[in-house]
Amino acid sequence: MSSRRSFLQSISVASATAMAVPSILQASNKRDDAQVAPESLKFHIGFAGYSFVKFDLDQTLQMMNRLQVKYLSVKDFHLPLNSSSDQIAAVQKKFSDKGVIPYTVGVIYMKSKQEVDRAFDYAKSFGVDMIVGVPDEALLTYVEEKVKSTNIKMAIHNHGPEDKLYPTPKSIYDRIQKMDKRMGLCIDIGHTFRAGVLPEQAIMQYADRLFDLHIKDEEAMRADAKTIEIGRGAINFSAVLDVLRKIKYKGICSIEYEKDMDAPLVGMAESVGFFKGMMSK
Amino acid sequence: MSSRRSFLQSISVASATAMAVPSILQASNKRDDAQVAPESLKFHIGFAGYSFVKFDLDQTLQMMNRLQVKYLSVKDFHLPLNSSSDQIAAVQKKFSDKGVIPYTVGVIYMKSKQEVDRAFDYAKSFGVDMIVGVPDEALLTYVEEKVKSTNIKMAIHNHGPEDKLYPTPKSIYDRIQKMDKRMGLCIDIGHTFRAGVLPEQAIMQYADRLFDLHIKDEEAMRADAKTIEIGRGAINFSAVLDVLRKIKYKGICSIEYEKDMDAPLVGMAESVGFFKGMMSK
Repeated sequence: MSSRRSFLQSISVASATAMAVPSILQASNKRDDAQVAPESLKFHIGFAGYSFVKFDLDQTLQMMNRLQVKYLSVKDFHLPLNSSSDQIAAVQKKFSDKGVIPYTVGVIYMKSKQEVDRAFDYAKSFGVDMIVGVPDEALLTYVEEKVKSTNIKMAIHNHGPEDKLYPTPKSIYDRIQKMDKRMGLCIDIGHTFRAGVLPEQAIMQYADRLFDLHIKDEEAMRADAKTIEIGRGAINFSAVLDVLRKIKYKGICSIEYEKDMDAPLVGMAESVGFFKGMMSK
Repeated sequence: MSSRRSFLQSISVASATAMAVPSILQASNKRDDAQVAPESLKFHIGFAGYSFVKFDLDQTLQMMNRLQVKYLSVKDFHLPLNSSSDQIAAVQKKFSDKGVIPYTVGVIYMKSKQEVDRAFDYAKSFGVDMIVGVPDEALLTYVEEKVKSTNIKMAIHNHGPEDKLYPTPKSIYDRIQKMDKRMGLCIDIGHTFRAGVLPEQAIMQYADRLFDLHIKDEEAMRADAKTIEIGRGAINFSAVLDVLRKIKYKGICSIEYEKDMDAPLVGMAESVGFFKGMMSK
């Protein structure tokens, strides 16, 4: 337990430092961040774990180091939901050694109270304060109870037009807006766009409950569109960045790269570069 | 000759189209380019051929296709200075097949009149209207004569503090400012920065003779600094972009990537992404 506690402390210190001065962006940041105007705000770049579905955690952390990206939303294939405390400690050490911060877990699907319990236990044991999840509708009240009892936030993830339950950010917001304020959204801008909704509008509209973002580009505003390198597609990233600055978004911008999944590094690099370049202006 | 002529025509058409609507940037361009404000101007991204010194032309064009970059400044290792017309035609076909435009040749060093003659013959045979070159100082008048007789521009390249003749853009400009207006500069912003000069100031100062750019980032403003991914280093790219927009730069922004030269694709991708992302704002 002591190793976990010191790991949590190191994350906490790292996060606090990072929040004060975005260290991953310092290189490209020519301004004085302490006095930065809202229209010049920069955000932390992360990765949604699914981007690395074909790679183990060691490879994943190596790739993130290459790209100088520091935040990862951890998927269960890198840390199984039923991990022992020893397994968790080993994974935490890998993150710590590579200087990558596992800032949340997910996406986790929850179809029973047992699965909700397991997700919260897992997040607590791993030491994160947020779950990106997809709880069945009937479980929302139970999830809210868990949020209150654990102080772990739930960011519900929209999965586009094929998703019966949460196709759009609105479909999430409508169900949780009267619940505890720690019930919120992880807006996936690609799935949002495929559902015919402009991400910049959804971000503005649901800003008060926006905890996390999955960032990607889509070739077109079409249900069956493919995701591509950020900046090559149809999403208006300039408008997305404008609105994130307007609402002074406090979370991570996690890129979810789902093209060339066997060899994604080149496309990831272009996507990271694009996002950093945009923020530099 | 007819194949070269049709190749030149196709380049000419491609260039004209590209100038009207920057096709390589269309994907990330959400504005109406016909009515674009100067502060939103976008520029064509290219590569300086030296970036691909470890790769043959087929590999180079494949890498450029992967990155969707359309303009190449061709180095002699991809097209030897003494190429026959058959060799030139074969290389032109490769470019045409891959949709890449060889917009200039160089950097070519010229230490005798014979080498000046050879460089201009080479440029003329290949069908480009500009040479990026380093002529000895004593040859500048002869180069000017060739510029006048061929209507091929000479963009002289600065090579940083170690370069006795052309360490900075100023050292070039001072020598050519009273010469024919087709005598100009290829400002290498990295070498400029290493020489202690801000690229954004040099670009502004010598705008009337700025024909080409080699774009890179440097880890620091230091003579022995190493080049790194664009956006990670000490060059103020936001200021560079601002001044390029201010002077309405008409040339190509050619990235010269000199890190990880055995496997440069990931760093190139981040650099291209950064530049595109900046321009999208």
